[in-house]
Formats: sequence, structure tokens, C-alpha cells
Amino acid sequence: LGRIMRPDDANVAGNVHGGTILKMIEEAGAIISTRHCNSQAGEPCVAALARVERTDFLSPVCIGEVANVSAEITYTSRHSVEVQVNVMSENILTGAKKVTNKATLWYVPLSLKNVNKVLEVPPIQYVRKEQEDEGRKRYEEQKLDRLETKQRNGDVIFPVINPEPHTVGYSQSSLIHLVGPSDCTLLGFVHGGVTMKLMDEVAGIVAARHCKTNIVTASVDAINFHEKIKKGSVITISGRMTFTSNKSMEIEVFVDADPFVDESRGRYRAVSAFFTYVSLSKEGKPLPVPQLLTETEEEKRRFEEGKGRYLQTKAKRQAQLQQAAQ
Amino acid sequence: LGRIMRPDDANVAGNVHGGTILKMIEEAGAIISTRHCNSQAGEPCVAALARVERTDFLSPVCIGEVANVSAEITYTSRHSVEVQVNVMSENILTGAKKVTNKATLWYVPLSLKNVNKVLEVPPIQYVRKEQEDEGRKRYEEQKLDRLETKQRNGDVIFPVINPEPHTVGYSQSSLIHLVGPSDCTLLGFVHGGVTMKLMDEVAGIVAARHCKTNIVTASVDAINFHEKIKKGSVITISGRMTFTSNKSMEIEVFVDADPFVDESRGRYRAVSAFFTYVSLSKEGKPLPVPQLLTETEEEKRRFEEGKGRYLQTKAKRQAQLQQAAQ
Amino acid sequence: LGRIMRPDDANVAGNVHGGTILKMIEEAGAIISTRHCNSQAGEPCVAALARVERTDFLSPVCIGEVANVSAEITYTSRHSVEVQVNVMSENILTGAKKVTNKATLWYVPLSLKNVNKVLEVPPIQYVRKEQEDEGRKRYEEQKLDRLETKQRNGDVIFPVINPEPHTVGYSQSSLIHLVGPSDCTLLGFVHGGVTMKLMDEVAGIVAARHCKTNIVTASVDAINFHEKIKKGSVITISGRMTFTSNKSMEIEVFVDADPFVDESRGRYRAVSAFFTYVSLSKEGKPLPVPQLLTETEEEKRRFEEGKGRYLQTKAKRQAQLQQAAQ
Repeated sequence: LGRIMRPDDANVAGNVHGGTILKMIEEAGAIISTRHCNSQAGEPCVAALARVERTDFLSPVCIGEVANVSAEITYTSRHSVEVQVNVMSENILTGAKKVTNKATLWYVPLSLKNVNKVLEVPPIQYVRKEQEDEGRKRYEEQKLDRLETKQRNGDVIFPVINPEPHTVGYSQSSLIHLVGPSDCTLLGFVHGGVTMKLMDEVAGIVAARHCKTNIVTASVDAINFHEKIKKGSVITISGRMTFTSNKSMEIEVFVDADPFVDESRGRYRAVSAFFTYVSLSKEGKPLPVPQLLTETEEEKRRFEEGKGRYLQTKAKRQAQLQQAAQ
Repeated sequence: LGRIMRPDDANVAGNVHGGTILKMIEEAGAIISTRHCNSQAGEPCVAALARVERTDFLSPVCIGEVANVSAEITYTSRHSVEVQVNVMSENILTGAKKVTNKATLWYVPLSLKNVNKVLEVPPIQYVRKEQEDEGRKRYEEQKLDRLETKQRNGDVIFPVINPEPHTVGYSQSSLIHLVGPSDCTLLGFVHGGVTMKLMDEVAGIVAARHCKTNIVTASVDAINFHEKIKKGSVITISGRMTFTSNKSMEIEVFVDADPFVDESRGRYRAVSAFFTYVSLSKEGKPLPVPQLLTETEEEKRRFEEGKGRYLQTKAKRQAQLQQAAQ
Repeated sequence: LGRIMRPDDANVAGNVHGGTILKMIEEAGAIISTRHCNSQAGEPCVAALARVERTDFLSPVCIGEVANVSAEITYTSRHSVEVQVNVMSENILTGAKKVTNKATLWYVPLSLKNVNKVLEVPPIQYVRKEQEDEGRKRYEEQKLDRLETKQRNGDVIFPVINPEPHTVGYSQSSLIHLVGPSDCTLLGFVHGGVTMKLMDEVAGIVAARHCKTNIVTASVDAINFHEKIKKGSVITISGRMTFTSNKSMEIEVFVDADPFVDESRGRYRAVSAFFTYVSLSKEGKPLPVPQLLTETEEEKRRFEEGKGRYLQTKAKRQAQLQQAAQ
């Protein structure tokens, strides 16, 4: 899977949107896991995205470069598949290649005939016993984490009249999208990748409004897809800034689905996630970011929580660097 | 509803096509009116565009800006909904905001089960009694106007061999489009916004061929959607210039639908409208437009009619300015 | 390179447009040849499509299937690259794979700094000496053929008033397209694949208008790209039926470019080609096609020429089958 990056895939500075990459990653994951889940005789099924692990964008991709996406199944539980996807950007003029992303996605096979039925996943063969054990550990961890996010949610974004620059209300944004047929899988539900692309679009607008410079996606926290979104629904994607460090911004994004011609169900929260953005100079160097001004108690609490996530990630990365240096 | 304007939304000079804005306006209108019409228990329905009132493009939008679209229901009759849509363009780098458009659209709720059945619209509450009266007046006016346009039509555009520059035949253009799934509502009929975007595309090419400069949509006359267009149809969109003033061009656009796999019906005229374009210099100032050379009696008659519309609009605008000045 | 086929890629019957496949093939060819031509130190360049050899569509691809495209460089002359592209469709539910296409494309490296300068191609290594000889033979043949098509052209399509069903005038169609940034390479010229997709779109509409059934692309004759098309141009793509056999239709398609903001050049013929379509029943079996009614001497002459091409192709295929059977 690969594609030349076009002007529409990128921002005005020529950097490809993180959302375009996330969409390609998810398409590759959906193909390999659907193929695997149908590899044994039995009910035909479509793999639906259940979760994406935290993803770092290691280097920006530019218009005219080719993004090469490769995917591999790394673990299977009874009802889920773990896929590892790597994205490599290639400048076909200079031949230079860079790793852009490494992502881990979890898929669940849903029956084509009965969309509420989760089928069994054919087990994969592991070369070494440890691979299976490590996979099981990752499986258990993400399961716990998924339960947790099911608790939060509920939050709504209200517009603020005449907000001061650099406050939360100043940059918060939302967009709505009517789900069309090409947004959907064979089951008639929105591709996870389409949702992530829209989330990145809103997060990018929030970040640009806050710092008014060229911004790029630096990372996306783990995203859990608890609720499917049906063709014909209207989805509202809202984003607000939660935290700023010296050189990064954290934006929380919510996706609410409204199957508005379908009487049986009202509007519901489908997904939520944290995106981290950095601001880049013309030479591609990170710029300082204006500090987020928090006004309400809620905003201060979210800022502290964001700081916690920021410090945790920083500590983890340093531990990895030290380990690598040893 | 909001979206960053991408390179493909704009012409070579970076000005966003009027058709892109019209499509966003219509999507917002379709969402709010479909939601409203399904707000009471009863048959599920989809709101279909019946009419767009005359729309002025107040200032051009550029690539990289965010177009914010907001919609509000301003009147309901028994079987139709009036929606007021405002578009604001925002330069997220400078924070500058400009009103781009104000549009008024009329929708009619069609049953999801039986597409030929028009359902009843739940009434809205008015803050002041006068709002209801004014709305009723607008409703009656547009009803009359819709009947009128049902009369004209019929006209066809024939190509001219070796036309002279600045004649009608020189710039007239047409395109065909095969209606795909993403062009359609849940009912399987083309979104009004998709049709308007294609109409603007043809009108823009006619205008560019005539004056060979950077052109932008200045306004669109009221458009009535008398006939639905089904998925799988081929639509032919044709445009010809009807009138030029010193600094503007009027282009008439026809949409003909050919449901060619459906034997029961031949080709029919689905929509027609007048678009007004201006030519802009690199600094964004209006340029003089070469005068349209009319050759046949028909062309001279259409030129005079266009002049009538032009003078009427000019008079209306001056009256409004005087009123505002008092 | 691969992608899940979406509803927007297909016709109402769910068969993916030949044009979608041609566009993917050309993207794969452009990537591999641009990469190869930049593999040695020297001026950076972009490979531009010069020619596509005759291509047969062996089996239709459906929505939800994955199209896998693989490309290989099979010959290099001093200034051109021959690329062999294979397309395999994969039903990821059943695991069934089918060869959809085999295409041969010729690319020429153009300097990024001076678009009129053709650069030298680094030679490839051949496993066997015969491969080089056979490649040189193919190179010489296509060179001759390219010169030949440079001669024809010139022809224009005029509309007919009230045409009878099944005449040439009845089904002929044309569309205009404003070339946007995402249609173009880094050099600012239209991707050959974009042009071929639009050509297939027009040819498909001509075929559908003629026989009013579900039609699919069966083959495309060799296409030569003599003239580049610049960003911002308006292109007119016109198609007319030239020949019908019992179960196939041949459609001639012309592409004319009008770089209308560029004063130095008028409208010119950029590409022309022959597409062959078949009509399919709901079960995917070929249906009889109504015979084309020719009226003018010109039409009768073109019909005979089409018959010649048809019989020649048929004879070639039978010779291949006999050879394979021996």
C-alpha cells in the first residue's frame, strides 16, 4: 500500500496532515485483518477497528513524496487481532527514506450477516514463544485501558462569546460531517480511518487558531472505538486545547454521532482522543508555543491532567533512550 | 460546520470556487432541516432542497482559510422549512473574520419509505409574532416565483463552428457527470449542493473563456429544484453567457438529467439558474470585462433581459444602502 | 500499492470503473520510473507518461475488493523507461484472487528545473541477453506507432439535433474539466492517469447511452501522450462510438486542452484513444449490443476501420490461444 502525497493531503506549508497518514494506516490494518479473519472456512466477516495505540509522528511527510505503508499481524486473541503498521516516507527524487510512523491497531471481526456478532479469530503461528507472551500482555493492558475510557466521555463543548486570545474558548472548534457511502465499510459503518482523519482536521484547526503558525501532528494518544457510526449519520467532531508545554499543545477531540433519521437512537459519543501538535518554523524547527490561559476550575483540572500525561510520556521516552544507550 | 479550504477547492489564483461554498451551505441546510423534520415521532424522512434564494458572495475565500457555516431554521410552513445559512471565512493565522455569504434555502421533507410522499413539518416557535408573519410573506413570494420558473426552460445550447472571440458561441461550455453514490442523499437522489457545485464549475469556465483572467462568483440568482435526479443518471450541465456590464458577466446554466438505465423516462430539464461573475486583478480589484457580442435575435433578447435583471439588482442595492444610511 | 474499492469507484451495478484501475496503474508506473531515473547522481527529474500499450481488462473488480498493483521496470532506452504493471483483485472475504490487468507503460524523464529537457535514463541490468533484445524490439515498435498517431487527430465532434437512437450522434458525449492541483505532478502537468480516468468516464457514458445497460471497460487501445497539459487548463474530453460487433462497442475519445490563461497558445489536441466496452447482464454474462447506425460517409469509414481493428485483435488472440495450446 502506497501513494503519492497530493496538494490536498497537505497544509499550506506543504506538510502532509497527520490525518491522511492515520487514514492510510487504518486502511492497511483493515485489509490485513479482514483477510486474516476470513482465512478459515466459516462465516464471512469484516474487521472493525476497536483501538489504536498511541502513535508518534517521527518526521513530517511532504507533497510529492510517496508514503509506503506495510502491515503485519503480531498477535491474535480469541476475538481480536493486533496489527503493527509501519509508514515510510520516500522522496523518489533523492531516494531518501524516513520512518514516519509505527502504529499498533486492534481489530474485531464482525459477521457480515449479523453485525452484532463477534466471530472467532484464527490463531497465528509465533516464531518464538516469547512473542505470544508479550502479545498477551499487550492485549491485557489495552483491554484494561479500553474499559477506563468507557467511563469518561459525557463532556460537551460550548461556544464562548468574545473569548480572549490563548484561552480555551478562543481556539475551540467543531465541524460536522454527513457520513457518505465511501466513508463506510461493507457493513455500512464508518471506517475508523475516516473518523481519525476528521479528528486530526479539527485538532489542527484548534492548534493553528491558538498559535497562528504552521503546525503539525506530533502524536496521537490511544483511541478507543466503542461505538460504531452508521452510514447516513451526522457526526460532530469537536476539539479544545487542554494543555501546552513550551513547545507542544495537547488537544482533546470528541466525536458525537447523530443517526438523525433513525428514530431508535439519539445522539451519542462515539470516540474521543488526545492529539499533540507542535509549531514549526519555515526551516522545520519547533517553535515556542503561547501558554494556554485556563479560566475555569475544570480547565485548570484538565491542564494538570494534560501535564501529567506529558510528563509521563517524557519520562517513558527518556527511559527508552537510556535503555537504547546501554 | 467548518472546513479548511484545500487547494482543490480553489482556482489557480487561490480563490475558493463559489460552488464549494454553495455545496457546504446546502449540506448545512440539509442536516438542520432533516433533523428538525425528524424531531417528532412519525415516519422518518429526508429533507430535499426545493429552492435557494438569490445569494451574494461578499468576499472571496482563500486556500488555508477556514469556512465556518452556521444554519438556523427561520420559518416552517406545513410542508416546507426555511433555513438561513451564514458563512464566515476565518484566516486562522491572523484571526481575521469576514462574512462571505448569507443564504436562504427551502427544504421539503420526503418520506424514507415512499419518496413521493411529502410529510408534515413540525412547527417552530417564534420569539415574536412578526417573525412568523414575515416568514409567511417570504413563503408566499417564493411559491409564486417557483411557479414562474416552471414555465421557462426548454432551451438547448448548440455549439458554434469557429466562433469569434467574445461571442456567445465562443465561451459556451457543457459537461456531463455520472451521478455516483457520494453525490446522493439516503433517498438516492442528488444533493442540491452537488448540482450547484457543478453549475458553478461550468459557469466559471464560461466566464474564464470569455475574459481569460482570474474570475470569481459574485452572485447566484434564485434556483428552483423542480425535479429530482436519481443515482446512476447522467447529467449534462451547460452554460452560456447572456449579459455583460462594465465589470460583470451573467451566465445562464441548465442542468438536464438522463436516467438512462430507467426506460420509463427520457431526458428532462432538472434545474436552471443565472450566475454572475466578476474578473479580478492580482490585487483583488474588479477588472473591466470585454463586452459580449450578440449575433442572433435570441441572443440580443437575452442580453436585454439580463440587463433588466442587472439594473433591478443595482436599484435594489442602492435602495438598501439609502435605507441603511438613514 | 493497493486500495479497497469504494462505492465512488464503481458504477451502480458495483463494477469498478476501468478508469479507476488505469489511474492506479499509472500512479504505480510514475512512482517506479521516477525513482529509477533519479537513482543516479544528476539533475532531479520527474517521469512523465509517454505511452500506454493496449490493455485488456480480464475480469471486473467489485466494491469492497482490494486492488493490488505491482510494477517492474522491464526495459530502458537512452531516454525512456518501459514499466510492466500487474493488477490483481483480491476478495478479502473469500481470499479469491484474480488477475485484472497487465499493462505496459512508457515514461520519459523530464528535468525538474527545465521541463523541456529530457534527461538520460540509467540503464538496468538484464538477467538474460534476450530480455534486452526483446525490449529493444518493443521500443522500436512503439516508437513507430507513436509517430503514426501524431498524424491523425484534428477531428472534432459536433452535436446532432434530435438524433435517432443507436446513431453516432445519439450517444456522443463530452465533458469539460478544470485542471486542479491534485490532478498534477510536481512539474505542474496533468498525471497521465487522471487523463485516462476522465477518458474512461466519457467512453462509459457513450456506451451506456447507446445500449442502456450495465457496461464495463473491456480494453483500451494504445494511448500516446504527445502533449503535456498544464495546471489551470480547461480540458474537453469527447467521445463517439465508431464500431459495434455483436457483443462489444468501440468508442473513440479525444482530449483537447485549452491553456486559456496562457495567451501564447490556443486549444490543442493532447491525447486520443479507442476504448472497447461490453454490456453485462446481472449475472455478469456479456449481452448482445444494438448495432451502431452509421449515417455519413465519414461514419461508415470509421466503422470499417473499427471493424479492421476488431478483426485484427480477434485474430491475434486466437493465434495466442493456439500457441498456448501447442
